[in-house]
Amino acid sequence: MPAFNPLVEKLSPPPVPSVAAWGRAYDGSQGPLIDLAQAVPGYPAHPEMLKLLGEAASSPAFTGYGPIEGETELRRVYAEHLSQVYGAPLGLENVHITSGCNQAFVCAAMTVAGPGNTVLMTEPFYFNHETTLAMMAIRTAFVSCEPANGFLPDLLALEEAITGDVRALAVVSPNNPTGAIYPPSLLEAIFKLCREKGIWLILDETYRDFMPEAGLVGGGRAPHGLFGLDGWEDTLISLYSFSKSFCIPGHRLGAVTAGAGVVAQVAKIMDNLQICAPRAAQAAVARALPLLAGWREENRQEIGRRAGALKAAMRSVNGWKLDAIGAYFAFVRHPFPGRGSAEVAEKLARQAGIVCIPGAYFGDSQQNYLRFAFANADAPTIGLLEERLRNFSLS
Amino acid sequence: MPAFNPLVEKLSPPPVPSVAAWGRAYDGSQGPLIDLAQAVPGYPAHPEMLKLLGEAASSPAFTGYGPIEGETELRRVYAEHLSQVYGAPLGLENVHITSGCNQAFVCAAMTVAGPGNTVLMTEPFYFNHETTLAMMAIRTAFVSCEPANGFLPDLLALEEAITGDVRALAVVSPNNPTGAIYPPSLLEAIFKLCREKGIWLILDETYRDFMPEAGLVGGGRAPHGLFGLDGWEDTLISLYSFSKSFCIPGHRLGAVTAGAGVVAQVAKIMDNLQICAPRAAQAAVARALPLLAGWREENRQEIGRRAGALKAAMRSVNGWKLDAIGAYFAFVRHPFPGRGSAEVAEKLARQAGIVCIPGAYFGDSQQNYLRFAFANADAPTIGLLEERLRNFSLS
Ligand SMILES: Cc1ncc(COP(=O)(O)O)c(C=O)c1O
Ligand SMILES: Cc1ncc(COP(=O)(O)O)c(C=O)c1O
Repeated sequence: MPAFNPLVEKLSPPPVPSVAAWGRAYDGSQGPLIDLAQAVPGYPAHPEMLKLLGEAASSPAFTGYGPIEGETELRRVYAEHLSQVYGAPLGLENVHITSGCNQAFVCAAMTVAGPGNTVLMTEPFYFNHETTLAMMAIRTAFVSCEPANGFLPDLLALEEAITGDVRALAVVSPNNPTGAIYPPSLLEAIFKLCREKGIWLILDETYRDFMPEAGLVGGGRAPHGLFGLDGWEDTLISLYSFSKSFCIPGHRLGAVTAGAGVVAQVAKIMDNLQICAPRAAQAAVARALPLLAGWREENRQEIGRRAGALKAAMRSVNGWKLDAIGAYFAFVRHPFPGRGSAEVAEKLARQAGIVCIPGAYFGDSQQNYLRFAFANADAPTIGLLEERLRNFSLS
Repeated sequence: MPAFNPLVEKLSPPPVPSVAAWGRAYDGSQGPLIDLAQAVPGYPAHPEMLKLLGEAASSPAFTGYGPIEGETELRRVYAEHLSQVYGAPLGLENVHITSGCNQAFVCAAMTVAGPGNTVLMTEPFYFNHETTLAMMAIRTAFVSCEPANGFLPDLLALEEAITGDVRALAVVSPNNPTGAIYPPSLLEAIFKLCREKGIWLILDETYRDFMPEAGLVGGGRAPHGLFGLDGWEDTLISLYSFSKSFCIPGHRLGAVTAGAGVVAQVAKIMDNLQICAPRAAQAAVARALPLLAGWREENRQEIGRRAGALKAAMRSVNGWKLDAIGAYFAFVRHPFPGRGSAEVAEKLARQAGIVCIPGAYFGDSQQNYLRFAFANADAPTIGLLEERLRNFSLS
């Protein structure tokens, strides 16, 4: 049999389906399964969203190939939205629609780095970023984010890590897996460091809309001011996902926001990768974006309540420690140091019906952690964690 | 400004939008624009298809992330269909759904080749195959397909070209750009050569359903018998697009058919590229596949009539030669040797309102050719070509 590409062959199987299998092995003895594994909102899409999706999908207007960069209307409406969120003038020439934010990352990484180049990442990292770079033969280097520093990177450590072969720094804020929200001042310092060093900053803002004070209905605080800084077009590539905010991951929509020069490179990549993102969902989201601002704001508040419920539930569980909790995720220190996070997560799923992702999936040094995607469960369900964790022992 | 990835930077802008711009510069003086550029069916999707798409897209059932490999129902139904078309037992484990056939090619190529490996292609080639490999740092080598041989490759030339660094041979049948249909016996010989040499055969069958004798309603002739040959799972990766047969390119659906081992590799790539293909369209196509067999058969016959109309129109136009015509495309030799195909195509668009793709886009040595995607225009429109070409002169 001829060989596979070793870069692909040596990747582990995708983590989310494997973890889900542990949940299916749970016997129900502790009550209903609590799924804190996949990063999806636990509430349904808005009926109006579904209606718009249905209308667009049944229309002959979106059956043909569309513009590579995305539907003009969505790019326009989204650029307007961005201008409001960031308080900076962004136009449709700054937007490239993709089929989800994983694809936006593929495009961003490939735009700035080829085989043998290095992309610097923070650790713990979002696993698909790491495996994406690995399969494309792009080298990775890591700057560790310590719990004592709120899982934020240290600027000096970043500066030291930017060696000559580093083409870009990839940062996720709000962070997956820790939930950590990078303060605007830190992002500005990171941006300036990248600009000074002549490398790109790839900023994955998938969870932007779930930040405290997100300005979904106007008047919020901008996640950062980078789009207003000198030379941002030659330094910043920002990524976004429509999956989480609109509860439509199955429709696969994301976006790259960048200078027009970057967008032109991304278009060449997208033409090869898949010509254009699916069109009907683009048309539907263009209409839903202004329409559902209030609903998204309610969800943001609901997820805030879920964070509150998780804090309350974890307060009195001996040994378990909520080392970080943020916009969507909590990074939880389990009380079994020396035991692997995969072992803990598997047993937690099989015995206690709590499904979550082992810390080690986000970096080898994260063995003491588990990622709880608390946005996935409502507050009463989250309340059940207290007793289940208290009763849990690692046999 | 930090550098772009040179592999991406040096790609030309996507060809189809550039060519469309020539058409927009046409002043209408010769009558309506005749668009023979993009490979899309010129008729609309079936109303039932639109209805199914709308139903699925408005359903909460498909809003969440789906299985990476594709909706189980679509994989099952499509595998059944494949078993019928090829007369060989194929199961859902042999199917990976992708977001279009360009993406299927990305997945196939990456599964078998990494940076520095070589993929052998036939020339003229489908440009996105070439640019996809280039941006992934996979080397390419070419075996030329001569007009005298019906644009089919010569087996000995293929054998000689399979040097030690070649990991796969990529073939397109029915061919884009020439339309050439590879006879089953040739495909079998090519398969056996690949198997013997220990390389993969990537076979892009995007236009399979438009072949004469395609068995869309049963009883057709199989495009080839490769799925019945010993060891096919370790040699063959077949690609398909739902774009053309169902007239829904905007919904972005394609498929890889391969051994289960290949499918497992593709799943790792797809998880990084975009997690899963858009789900609602998958659910809709699963239902449409058996339902619309009769309609697809009618379209196949209609495209046959368009081929007939093109043959008739070209018969009496001095100097223009239909060197190849097949399932979807014709490869037309223009009467201006020594002038570049891009110059001819641009002037043909601007002056005569005939938009088509320059031969050189499919390989530098194809300067004497233009690709006519005749499936795009109905027979009466195709009839207009005769006079327009006769009146056309290269100023
Ligand atoms: C940080 C981050 N980026 C990107 C993605 C992918 O999102 P999408 O569904 O838009 O591909 C996710 C999904 O979990 C994520 O957590
Ligand atoms: C040979 C070939 N492969 C793949 C594709 C891409 O098709 P899809 O729309 O499924 O991405 C095309 C489209 O023109 C094609 O001609």
